[in-house]
Amino acid sequence: MMKNEKPLILVTNDDGITAPGIRHLIKIMKEIGDVVVIAPDSPQSGMGHAITLNDNLYCDLITVNENENHKEYSCSGTPADCVKIAKQEILHRKPDICVSGINHGSNSSINVIYSGTMSAAVEAGTEGIPAIGFSLLDYSLAADFEPTTAYVKRITEEVLKNGLPEGVVLNVNFPKLPKEEIKGIKICRQAKAHWVEKFDKRTNPQGRDYYWLTGSFINEDKGTDTDEYNLANGYVSVVPIQFDLTAHKTIKELENWNLND
Amino acid sequence: MMKNEKPLILVTNDDGITAPGIRHLIKIMKEIGDVVVIAPDSPQSGMGHAITLNDNLYCDLITVNENENHKEYSCSGTPADCVKIAKQEILHRKPDICVSGINHGSNSSINVIYSGTMSAAVEAGTEGIPAIGFSLLDYSLAADFEPTTAYVKRITEEVLKNGLPEGVVLNVNFPKLPKEEIKGIKICRQAKAHWVEKFDKRTNPQGRDYYWLTGSFINEDKGTDTDEYNLANGYVSVVPIQFDLTAHKTIKELENWNLND
Repeated sequence: MMKNEKPLILVTNDDGITAPGIRHLIKIMKEIGDVVVIAPDSPQSGMGHAITLNDNLYCDLITVNENENHKEYSCSGTPADCVKIAKQEILHRKPDICVSGINHGSNSSINVIYSGTMSAAVEAGTEGIPAIGFSLLDYSLAADFEPTTAYVKRITEEVLKNGLPEGVVLNVNFPKLPKEEIKGIKICRQAKAHWVEKFDKRTNPQGRDYYWLTGSFINEDKGTDTDEYNLANGYVSVVPIQFDLTAHKTIKELENWNLND
Repeated sequence: MMKNEKPLILVTNDDGITAPGIRHLIKIMKEIGDVVVIAPDSPQSGMGHAITLNDNLYCDLITVNENENHKEYSCSGTPADCVKIAKQEILHRKPDICVSGINHGSNSSINVIYSGTMSAAVEAGTEGIPAIGFSLLDYSLAADFEPTTAYVKRITEEVLKNGLPEGVVLNVNFPKLPKEEIKGIKICRQAKAHWVEKFDKRTNPQGRDYYWLTGSFINEDKGTDTDEYNLANGYVSVVPIQFDLTAHKTIKELENWNLND
């Protein structure tokens, strides 16, 4: 970023460009810098880090509200596609930050691995762009995003000021609470939790069985330094996330296995 | 697993149930245990850890070749969906191991985050099932999987014998080499590499622009302990992968930021 230049902010999400969460995030980002939105044209929840390899991608400028400091593009692809096409085809320079969300629903704990919101942030991270995914623990389309405003602004400004270590992006989750009941921000680790699925089995009018995925979230982690614990206690959780997935501690153990004669 | 009982092996992939890679893997697994295949009905490459939240799922028994020790199901969902539905709806007990692949193409290094093959293994891992993703560095449908046979068998048997640490699955990649040129197995870390995308921009017959995603793989990692290095030098790479994505080293640094007044 040049001196006196406003930061260039790439905004995306996985709920689609019309979702209330991204509209709120755009409003906040316009107070901080020049905003380019490139977001999916339809909801992409649960897309994980999917990319579009076997289909073409559309990415169309939306001219409503367009001005020099605010452009929006609607993309037929996944959140990770949006970041890739932004960097290579749409933006004239590398953005100073990429923000993704605000997601309607939690991306805390193990949810991070299924999250399209976080995959956009991770994709930006692999390209050397500081990145943050924001999520609110409220799935409703009518969710109230106003209590997140000051925190989103503060965290974004701190990342713009300090940068992030190479290979790290931030996973930020907000409790579903009124503004006055949110106690502050906690840096956390990802809680050790998992989903126990339940499939709702039905039969279609042609007699073929099909299933709907449902499930319960099980948090077996008793730690007080986790995202789950702090969210339940009224804090905004910030988890630094890495995309070197190597379990370094396990390498030595595997070297003792009888794999080579 | 009860004494004298054969191991129950769940087989899946992301190239679809008819791909030569999974057919080869099934053949190997039938020498080791009872095999249940639950795999996508069509190719799912690049699906990352996607799950199906907004659509119904079909999962149909394929009766060809069915016998007591070998059943196959074709699923309309993603690789992660296949593992979820396997555990909850199809299998009568928790499988002793889940193997995914053999993928047509590399899942080494940063490719792991885009990989449907590995997402199936990770999904199994979150459910406490020892899991391995296998991939061959050859995208061709006519790829020769024969050179992988002894290694796939050995690694699977070692995991059945030793188990895997909690929260860890294996990412195994094979060089595209004749059997006699493969030098053995190396335990590795994920190389620090990334993709530089290039979009092939075209115009459709209606005059609307669209893009195809292409790109070049850039490995900036000079280490000799990486998967990329060892694959290039004729070894099978085994990387232990974790799904606690917390960048633990960064927590202290972030605690020094000015996030709370």
